[in-house]
Amino acid sequence: MKRREFLKGAAVASGAAVTGVAASSFPKPAISQDMRELKMVTTWPKNFPGLGTGAQRVADRITAATDGRLTVKLFAAGELVPAFESFDAVSSGTADCLHAAAYYWQGKHPAFNFFTAVPLGFTPNELNAWVYHGGGQELWDELAADFNLKGLLAGNTGSQMGGWFNKEINSLEDMKGLTMRMPGLGGEVLRRIGASAVALPGGEIFPALQSGAIDATEWVGPWNDLAFGFYKITKHYYYPGFHEPGSGLECTWNLDVWNSFSDSDKELIKACCAGEDSYTLAEFNARNGGSLTTLLDEHGVQLHKFSDDIFNAIAKSADEVVNEVASHDDLAKRVVESYTSFRKDVTGWTALSDQAYTEARTKAAAS
Amino acid sequence: MKRREFLKGAAVASGAAVTGVAASSFPKPAISQDMRELKMVTTWPKNFPGLGTGAQRVADRITAATDGRLTVKLFAAGELVPAFESFDAVSSGTADCLHAAAYYWQGKHPAFNFFTAVPLGFTPNELNAWVYHGGGQELWDELAADFNLKGLLAGNTGSQMGGWFNKEINSLEDMKGLTMRMPGLGGEVLRRIGASAVALPGGEIFPALQSGAIDATEWVGPWNDLAFGFYKITKHYYYPGFHEPGSGLECTWNLDVWNSFSDSDKELIKACCAGEDSYTLAEFNARNGGSLTTLLDEHGVQLHKFSDDIFNAIAKSADEVVNEVASHDDLAKRVVESYTSFRKDVTGWTALSDQAYTEARTKAAAS
Repeated sequence: MKRREFLKGAAVASGAAVTGVAASSFPKPAISQDMRELKMVTTWPKNFPGLGTGAQRVADRITAATDGRLTVKLFAAGELVPAFESFDAVSSGTADCLHAAAYYWQGKHPAFNFFTAVPLGFTPNELNAWVYHGGGQELWDELAADFNLKGLLAGNTGSQMGGWFNKEINSLEDMKGLTMRMPGLGGEVLRRIGASAVALPGGEIFPALQSGAIDATEWVGPWNDLAFGFYKITKHYYYPGFHEPGSGLECTWNLDVWNSFSDSDKELIKACCAGEDSYTLAEFNARNGGSLTTLLDEHGVQLHKFSDDIFNAIAKSADEVVNEVASHDDLAKRVVESYTSFRKDVTGWTALSDQAYTEARTKAAAS
Repeated sequence: MKRREFLKGAAVASGAAVTGVAASSFPKPAISQDMRELKMVTTWPKNFPGLGTGAQRVADRITAATDGRLTVKLFAAGELVPAFESFDAVSSGTADCLHAAAYYWQGKHPAFNFFTAVPLGFTPNELNAWVYHGGGQELWDELAADFNLKGLLAGNTGSQMGGWFNKEINSLEDMKGLTMRMPGLGGEVLRRIGASAVALPGGEIFPALQSGAIDATEWVGPWNDLAFGFYKITKHYYYPGFHEPGSGLECTWNLDVWNSFSDSDKELIKACCAGEDSYTLAEFNARNGGSLTTLLDEHGVQLHKFSDDIFNAIAKSADEVVNEVASHDDLAKRVVESYTSFRKDVTGWTALSDQAYTEARTKAAAS
């Protein structure tokens, strides 16, 4: 018998009052949970390609998949709170969730860096492997709970470019004294090799680079960088990025709000966020190639590869910076240990698989 | 006012009959859709690591996220129908959906290959970029609809190993005359370079390799290959795989069943499948590293890299084989054109990003 017929039959047979039937026989989720409007704050400009639009897709997908039972309303940076106040807004319950990059919260705790990207760290696929199947999520849960939060991966920018420089950078010496926009631990690595680093939200970078307040900036990759128009200021574009080899984006919930969801809704939200992990990364990879061509062919951008001496010095400092996070407290120590131990196996596998394959493919194409 | 209180109030005020209230005031999804049990068939042994367990997670997640309103019951290979009859079972409605790899259905139409993997083709991230944001899904929809099906990506094995050989393969000459298990277009590439290829479902490979019916086999990667125990038969393990640089797994629905779902449930199922895309790939990447160490250190497996002459000959044949699919019919032509055009931009971006980064990281670690 179909459920609806059963329910109708039961109601007729028992002659039960509406509320009585509702409490005992109707499918539980529909009546045990209220229709709710949930506020999502973000650190991104409204509908900014990939970041803002990815956040919007998470909000829309949760709304659609629950048929509006959970309606997630998105507020772009500055609409409800300024970008970098999103964390406090969700922690305190002013907003219900945020879409951002966890390393923006390194001032709250340095271990947040590991759930976005650390210098010389995981590729997007390695980050997912660690978070979903290597103990990362459990550590993130512990860290976030200290701030009344629950974090989920909900996007990835893919490998980021090395950035835009107002002059050619041919050696480690050329990096010294530069002021570069770079958040997270990457900024600390820059300081170790003699540069200065500042963290600015996306919307403030262009004027800072234009005015000369900063000499260089990384942002994301060709697609986003084209949208911000950095090529109008300088043509020197470097790769590969060392600082964010695959930056996880987060959909992070107020913990009380998260705990108020049924198990079923938690599964649904987790699916929407993990699904967006695929969609956002796919979108960045789909758009970066064409955007790079546009930058090179239409805007005269010059592509440069970081020299080995720069990359190797950076790699050395990166190891120091990452390991020093461990001294912050016991939890930071455990996050670093988990990351380091997982990195050993996973990067060995990446070298044999994706790296070996793409190298051989590139070589064969040139042969 | 909270929804539940509103409903109670409305019912008391109107004195409506149960069925009347249910039809007009209760949240729509709970009563406009029946509780349904849906049958998922798969091409995998029950709970086989990554493949069978990934299929199970898709089934369980849809069930959990709908609180059992859509209960997906999984049947492993042979439980309801044999592995390779899954396609017909879902097309005809004997089962509601399947979890498999679309290239198993190349006999139905050669364009199905492109939604799993083609030789020298996309990495997992490139495949997702094409399917989700490069026109791939629309072409898949058109292809699948001809068989009364709707396909969705729902997992990825990651880059696969080159395979197990019963002797060392030092040159192209050594490949000639070998019989190797390899499904999809990879098998056709093998034929072009003078080897024979057979397609066998997972469960039949070990006995075939053991009896000498085949001389070599690829399966997936260290984690799955360790589980099947190929190291008991031969120690020669090759990389990188050319045939499946990132094999998409599918959750494909009977089209009438798919069309019977509400828009809301379609969004929910899409989220569960795209989420599993992340989870499965992450699991393969998380497990392959440690499993490779086990194969090398505990089972005396010898790792070999394919020589350049083998890889380059394969690359040349792969291009031919992929392009020849276009001659099958108009749809095949459009799939090949879409794939080829997308590949141009995306592989350029991969070379600058993931490839350049992992190369520099490996180099820095060795410096």
